[in-house]
Amino acid sequence: MSETTKYLLAESQIPSVWVNVLPSLPEPPDPPLHPGTRKPIGPEDLAPIFPMELIEQEFSPQREIDIPGEVMDVYRLWRPTPLYRARRLEKALDTPAHIYYKYEGTSPAGSHKPNTAVPQAYYNKRAGIRRLATETGAGQWGSALALACRLFGMECTVYMVRVSYDQKPYRRMMMHVWGAEVFPSPSDHTNAGRTVLAATPDSAGSLGIAISEAVEDAATHSDTNYSLGSVLNHVMLHQTVIGQEAKLQMQMAGEEPEVVIGCFGGGSNFGGLALPYVLDRLAGKGPRILAVEPSACPSLTKGVFAYDYGDTGKLTPLVKMYTLGHDFMPAGIHAGGLRYHGASPLLSHLRKLGHIDAVAYPQLPVFEAALQFARTEAIIPAPESSHAIRAAVDEALAAREEGRPRTILFCLSGHGHFDLSAYENYLTGQLQDYEYPAEDIEKSLAAIQPVGA
Amino acid sequence: MSETTKYLLAESQIPSVWVNVLPSLPEPPDPPLHPGTRKPIGPEDLAPIFPMELIEQEFSPQREIDIPGEVMDVYRLWRPTPLYRARRLEKALDTPAHIYYKYEGTSPAGSHKPNTAVPQAYYNKRAGIRRLATETGAGQWGSALALACRLFGMECTVYMVRVSYDQKPYRRMMMHVWGAEVFPSPSDHTNAGRTVLAATPDSAGSLGIAISEAVEDAATHSDTNYSLGSVLNHVMLHQTVIGQEAKLQMQMAGEEPEVVIGCFGGGSNFGGLALPYVLDRLAGKGPRILAVEPSACPSLTKGVFAYDYGDTGKLTPLVKMYTLGHDFMPAGIHAGGLRYHGASPLLSHLRKLGHIDAVAYPQLPVFEAALQFARTEAIIPAPESSHAIRAAVDEALAAREEGRPRTILFCLSGHGHFDLSAYENYLTGQLQDYEYPAEDIEKSLAAIQPVGA
Repeated sequence: MSETTKYLLAESQIPSVWVNVLPSLPEPPDPPLHPGTRKPIGPEDLAPIFPMELIEQEFSPQREIDIPGEVMDVYRLWRPTPLYRARRLEKALDTPAHIYYKYEGTSPAGSHKPNTAVPQAYYNKRAGIRRLATETGAGQWGSALALACRLFGMECTVYMVRVSYDQKPYRRMMMHVWGAEVFPSPSDHTNAGRTVLAATPDSAGSLGIAISEAVEDAATHSDTNYSLGSVLNHVMLHQTVIGQEAKLQMQMAGEEPEVVIGCFGGGSNFGGLALPYVLDRLAGKGPRILAVEPSACPSLTKGVFAYDYGDTGKLTPLVKMYTLGHDFMPAGIHAGGLRYHGASPLLSHLRKLGHIDAVAYPQLPVFEAALQFARTEAIIPAPESSHAIRAAVDEALAAREEGRPRTILFCLSGHGHFDLSAYENYLTGQLQDYEYPAEDIEKSLAAIQPVGA
Repeated sequence: MSETTKYLLAESQIPSVWVNVLPSLPEPPDPPLHPGTRKPIGPEDLAPIFPMELIEQEFSPQREIDIPGEVMDVYRLWRPTPLYRARRLEKALDTPAHIYYKYEGTSPAGSHKPNTAVPQAYYNKRAGIRRLATETGAGQWGSALALACRLFGMECTVYMVRVSYDQKPYRRMMMHVWGAEVFPSPSDHTNAGRTVLAATPDSAGSLGIAISEAVEDAATHSDTNYSLGSVLNHVMLHQTVIGQEAKLQMQMAGEEPEVVIGCFGGGSNFGGLALPYVLDRLAGKGPRILAVEPSACPSLTKGVFAYDYGDTGKLTPLVKMYTLGHDFMPAGIHAGGLRYHGASPLLSHLRKLGHIDAVAYPQLPVFEAALQFARTEAIIPAPESSHAIRAAVDEALAAREEGRPRTILFCLSGHGHFDLSAYENYLTGQLQDYEYPAEDIEKSLAAIQPVGA
């Protein structure tokens, strides 16, 4: 029997638009608030760090937004991406389930992140911006933006979370190859970084801190803007190319997914795959949608739905989201891209409306699934993406228990070529699990100041 | 203007046969000789370490050999591979040349090596073999065989050249992920390894030594065979899927290459792309064909065409090839996959017949071209493959000098995700060039014992 089952699209089938769920929502999300006045912000409040075209997309009432030709031209370097049916994994699990995965690791940066890095660089370039500043966790976002800036002739400065800077030197080197400047965060290049270092000189860093540094860098240099790789509406929008392609490919396979799964940090690959399916749900007929987060940073499963800062330094607007508190400090797990205290406000809103389920896993069962995947499907997955694999495997095992088929679709957001030391630690029994102590979560939750109080 | 120009084939266009140039040669290559008797060997001499189906392919008179369905099923995990026109690189070089590259880095192991690892594992499995032993330089071959063995349920033992084992830990870990056992070579697991260690305890190793170890391992275990990632005719045969696909894709582009380029270690990616074009030359109308080797291991440009051992321990048959001598010890350059003293006998024969040109480059100009490629075409190339890029760039610059177009095709055999420390060394000015002292080459050439003497 043929085991490799791959669904390939033609270049002409790359989506020509990004799809926007905002106008389809039954009620709008609560607006972002100015961190000083605590009043709803307007476009002018974001103008110091974002170009107007991205600000417009952030609040757009349009259902579809055309992808510019220059962006499409770069997308075509690696898009359309393949969708596979994981027959070898199904066989190993002895399950009646059908497992499909959309593989975004074929981009030159190795993940889905260039889907938004490229348009962000493009719109900033058009606005006359010379340099972009950003943060990165595991380095997937930083390397994607480094590449995008290089292709559009811009400079790029990356604040990389300290623990990943040390754990994943190859991702840092990759950013250097594409010409970016990379600082470990917290750094002494910003007030935000210096403040953290004064209190905690050996800080492992967090996305919240690195965001503060990058925002400060952009806000204090007129030729520089800030770029965010997740969380914001325009990021989710750009990533919808994933789900649009996947829907075409599932049609080729002649199946409809019963559950759609993605790993969840800020929400970008999850939203990218899920949002086109959310539109089906909003129209009354979509699949179950499942976000998978690490137990070490469980914003959707243990956080609260509240107004909070996007960063540790309180420089960003207050946004309504699931959050563990802006000074929550997640443990140094290998899935560095999932170490964020908050969650996309749009996806948080959809979770609140009942359209998104969530589950959290510790890293040992995640690596167990990752290894099984690598040894059956051949691709070595990123630790972040492996959270989605773990959940897909558990769905498939549940189907076996039930003795009934189940059609599962997940996003394999990136490869693990720069995470092999984590696999080596797992294989040699040195990888540790981490569940965040409940009292620490309570403490950081308590630091969230209620809006209106 | 659209800059991304990519030629994609349908799955149905993956070649269904491997093409064999042996029956088309104007004169046959000299036969391999038994290392003891120095008489031509027969199939029975190879039977202790190879399965009969591969031995038959080694000497096959058939022009085409069908690819088995089980092999095709695994090929389809990543084949067909894309062919790109490097328009962004052309623009940076301001050249009238058209540069095309066939990209083999999309396989799960990241190079062209699985094209032969998969059929080798398949035929050995069919012959009842439980385990394969092999050598690896940079780790591209070892990781490919580790993957292939895993997919066919076999065990895999890899002797990895010491300098690469230390320089490229991630490739070693990749083999572990796929379940292989990896020893640094020279090791104390074999007589061949122990002999070298006794003379040179801090030996950096070489492919010649590692081959001795793997051959000895296979020859001394009845359930174990040996697997070679380059040099042999059946390896060249399997790799012809590259050139067959590339020819279809060049047809899509509406161009004929004037020069076909590949990096050259033992010859496998070079042969894979070039041999289908060699058939055109043998029929009187093919392109110029150019092999690119490192100055630190210049077998085609500074070696002699003579009978020599394939390994340092003199365990292999004597083969007629371009060689620097079986005890030549190449410097520890980063293109570990090109550190081999010999060359494919088939390709050596074709060079002797005037069908293959060769050029050698030191590693600094190679990394200069690699960085320019990464910063224009986005893909970060392996140091081995970057030798082909260097030559392609020089062809394009020559075309600019002449003020005339030139159609260039090269094989980008793999990505450089596990070679980023070499890039970092280059970027920080720490990478050194290495030209082998002429007297050292003379010394190792003198150690070749003339056949018949």
